[in-house]
Amino acid sequence: MPEVVALVLRGTVIDSPSRTTLRVREHCLLGVSAEGRIAFCEDAHEEEIVAGGSVLLRDGGEVGLGAECAIVRLPPRGFLCPGLVDTHTHAPQFSFTGTGYDLQLLEWLTTYTFPAEQGFANLSHAARICRAAVRRTLYAGTTSCVYFATIHTEAALQLGRIASGMGQRAFVGKVNMDRNSPPSYVESTAESIAETERFVERMRAEAAEGRSGDVVGEDGLCVACEPKGPPPQPVVTPRFVPTCSGELMAALGRIAAKHGLLVTSHISENLGEVAWVKELHPECEHYAGVYDAAGLLTPRTILAHGVYLTAAERALLKARGSTVSHCPLSNCMLRSGMLNVRRALSEGVHVALGTDVSGGASPSMLTAIREALKVSNLTSLVEKEKSGEEWAPLTCTEAFHLATVGGATTLGVEHLTGHLSVGSICDAVVIDPDADGTPFDLQDADDALTAWTKWITLGDDRNTAEVYVQGRPVLHG
Amino acid sequence: MPEVVALVLRGTVIDSPSRTTLRVREHCLLGVSAEGRIAFCEDAHEEEIVAGGSVLLRDGGEVGLGAECAIVRLPPRGFLCPGLVDTHTHAPQFSFTGTGYDLQLLEWLTTYTFPAEQGFANLSHAARICRAAVRRTLYAGTTSCVYFATIHTEAALQLGRIASGMGQRAFVGKVNMDRNSPPSYVESTAESIAETERFVERMRAEAAEGRSGDVVGEDGLCVACEPKGPPPQPVVTPRFVPTCSGELMAALGRIAAKHGLLVTSHISENLGEVAWVKELHPECEHYAGVYDAAGLLTPRTILAHGVYLTAAERALLKARGSTVSHCPLSNCMLRSGMLNVRRALSEGVHVALGTDVSGGASPSMLTAIREALKVSNLTSLVEKEKSGEEWAPLTCTEAFHLATVGGATTLGVEHLTGHLSVGSICDAVVIDPDADGTPFDLQDADDALTAWTKWITLGDDRNTAEVYVQGRPVLHG
Repeated sequence: MPEVVALVLRGTVIDSPSRTTLRVREHCLLGVSAEGRIAFCEDAHEEEIVAGGSVLLRDGGEVGLGAECAIVRLPPRGFLCPGLVDTHTHAPQFSFTGTGYDLQLLEWLTTYTFPAEQGFANLSHAARICRAAVRRTLYAGTTSCVYFATIHTEAALQLGRIASGMGQRAFVGKVNMDRNSPPSYVESTAESIAETERFVERMRAEAAEGRSGDVVGEDGLCVACEPKGPPPQPVVTPRFVPTCSGELMAALGRIAAKHGLLVTSHISENLGEVAWVKELHPECEHYAGVYDAAGLLTPRTILAHGVYLTAAERALLKARGSTVSHCPLSNCMLRSGMLNVRRALSEGVHVALGTDVSGGASPSMLTAIREALKVSNLTSLVEKEKSGEEWAPLTCTEAFHLATVGGATTLGVEHLTGHLSVGSICDAVVIDPDADGTPFDLQDADDALTAWTKWITLGDDRNTAEVYVQGRPVLHG
Repeated sequence: MPEVVALVLRGTVIDSPSRTTLRVREHCLLGVSAEGRIAFCEDAHEEEIVAGGSVLLRDGGEVGLGAECAIVRLPPRGFLCPGLVDTHTHAPQFSFTGTGYDLQLLEWLTTYTFPAEQGFANLSHAARICRAAVRRTLYAGTTSCVYFATIHTEAALQLGRIASGMGQRAFVGKVNMDRNSPPSYVESTAESIAETERFVERMRAEAAEGRSGDVVGEDGLCVACEPKGPPPQPVVTPRFVPTCSGELMAALGRIAAKHGLLVTSHISENLGEVAWVKELHPECEHYAGVYDAAGLLTPRTILAHGVYLTAAERALLKARGSTVSHCPLSNCMLRSGMLNVRRALSEGVHVALGTDVSGGASPSMLTAIREALKVSNLTSLVEKEKSGEEWAPLTCTEAFHLATVGGATTLGVEHLTGHLSVGSICDAVVIDPDADGTPFDLQDADDALTAWTKWITLGDDRNTAEVYVQGRPVLHG
């Protein structure tokens, strides 16, 4: 009895299994099991699909097509590539995306961000903003997304249901803040800890019940239902050191360890912030040390920014196996600075990419890739002028790798690799370079690699023809 | 007998008449004469249009509506703003836009650019690329565009006809190159001079005959016809010092003076280029001095980049009244460097913006605005770290001003101001923030200023509902 697949995609498949390799496979037949795993990816022409309902593999094996197996032809000059992984964004900040770039981080937080986040006490408002956020990121090709919600447990649970209901693989943090926050947007330490426990347990319980999805109810609120995508996963999310007491952070470290959770926060985004942390924690050697003392630096920790990390801090992150989520657009727009990604990589620090809406204006990981390339270009010039050091700029393939494999491997989901190899989960996007209104022009002689390069450089949501999460079409399926 | 208008636009009008002023006029009636000049712009409600076919002005005047006057209501949450002015782009390079960013300027020219430009010897190929280029820039809201063509006179003339035929206000340069160029893409000095004269005379003759437009002929070539837009204007275009002998540059300076033409070229984009020019012209004090010696620095000169201009060169440009076309995306993508725009402005140098396709991948001046803001942010950080100097980043309004007034006033077209005041030429774009597939979300409480800010930060061609050049609709008219 041959293995059975539920979906066969036919066409060109492009991924980046290693940091310096772009793999372009044309004339592919890529089969996906009912569980969403890639069962085969063969260099094959159409006629090799046996009429009798099975596919003969080159190694002599045979894979059956399930009774309702969908056979999907990719667009003629299009391709399938791994879904993009956004390791850092803020769903509530989609309410003011595209405005508020006159201030730097600390003033920006109190002037624009905290008031906007406070609005998530209203669940109906929160649902509207979150639906728009998930829609934007999904159409941009983001199959996995790490979202900061707000301090409100119910709004954070709801965000998870919305993302899962729309089919996205979501990682959601109820934000913790028990100090240096506005009186109307802060929790007590005890409350913050208790609500985090409640958040984690409730999200996991809904997943276990198979009711972690949502549909829009009559009042605009959510109605729990079977999700379209994988259930959302809770993330322990201290906002950043300035707004979290040592006691709170230590408790969060224990919660993360107890439940085996992802942890996410911010670090060393801005010079004012770094100075403030130094003042708040004279007992710690450095900013990263504060998180480490609380047990928050693990192989499942994602820290956004890290622009001003010192060599000692980078060595600590490497030792802990924690990830830096590089958010170049945000770093430029909020005048934070430029992370030297090449140096971090060469020192063995794990790096992924994030959009950081609304510090970054764009919800698209394509923009994050482009900005990472530009910042890397500029860093190489500035560092050379400053110190004579040569840091090679990132290549397109490397930035794409960070946005796919770099992010996916950080999330710790079994078989989610960020590339499209046999055995991997099929989180993928179908790109059509000839879509209506496409923002770039293919020439007659352009090959698949050129089409991919133009998409990376100029493409947008118009080119996203379909998005698969765990092998299931979520835009048009 | 009251003045008569051919077009009335009703809604919100946003422009930036001075560098630090954003003017938001709601409930406007903006009237445009048959010649394309703004006859009035009144704060008025609908009922103030007199049924009898005239508009009563606040000052007591009255303006008649022509027999076929179009009354156009702007989109409910949309606005009219000045058309964007691209002071530097390369039409032939649209053939490889979005690729080729692995090399820096000098290698990039010989590897990608010169071979692509050489292809413009084929007029049918050139027509196809130029039509796509003009379409992209027009839909991006660029009403005036300064194009480098190639060394081929016929292809450059054809580009002018195509742009004018589609309604864009185009400034076209037949490129000059008589040294340090590939054997298959170079002219003799005499040929370059003679062809420039022929180019200027032919383009002006076609304009005088009213046959400077084009429609697509059976063979894909151009058929001259009455243009939709203003006739194209010839620009004297030495590529840059390394590819132009002193003799050629001096002759071009004389041609520019004789015919009163715009001049455009490149300057100080890249350190390797600057070093090369120093080697080629030991007799000149600096790069800008080479152009000056040839009489090429005038108030009608636009020099792209200027990243590495010295204080003496900036003072010379100021004295000559020449313009620097800042092309930040290109400067980042080709690893050229960052121009300190604030410093140039504070020293009195005239600055405009350009896309520099395909050094910059995007044909959109919105991208140029965003990149100018980011580069300005980063420059302020880098300069502070380097020298302790404080250079305030550009504001959104300032960048928009550079992209409209900054560019328009450079072009020297009478009454083309880049803002929408009475007496100005009506080159304008209608922006619809609620267009199908719009890339940003307006919230219910968002006002006109917020809508404009979001468009500047996140908008794209989907938001361009109409483009007016000289008062005439060119996308849907």
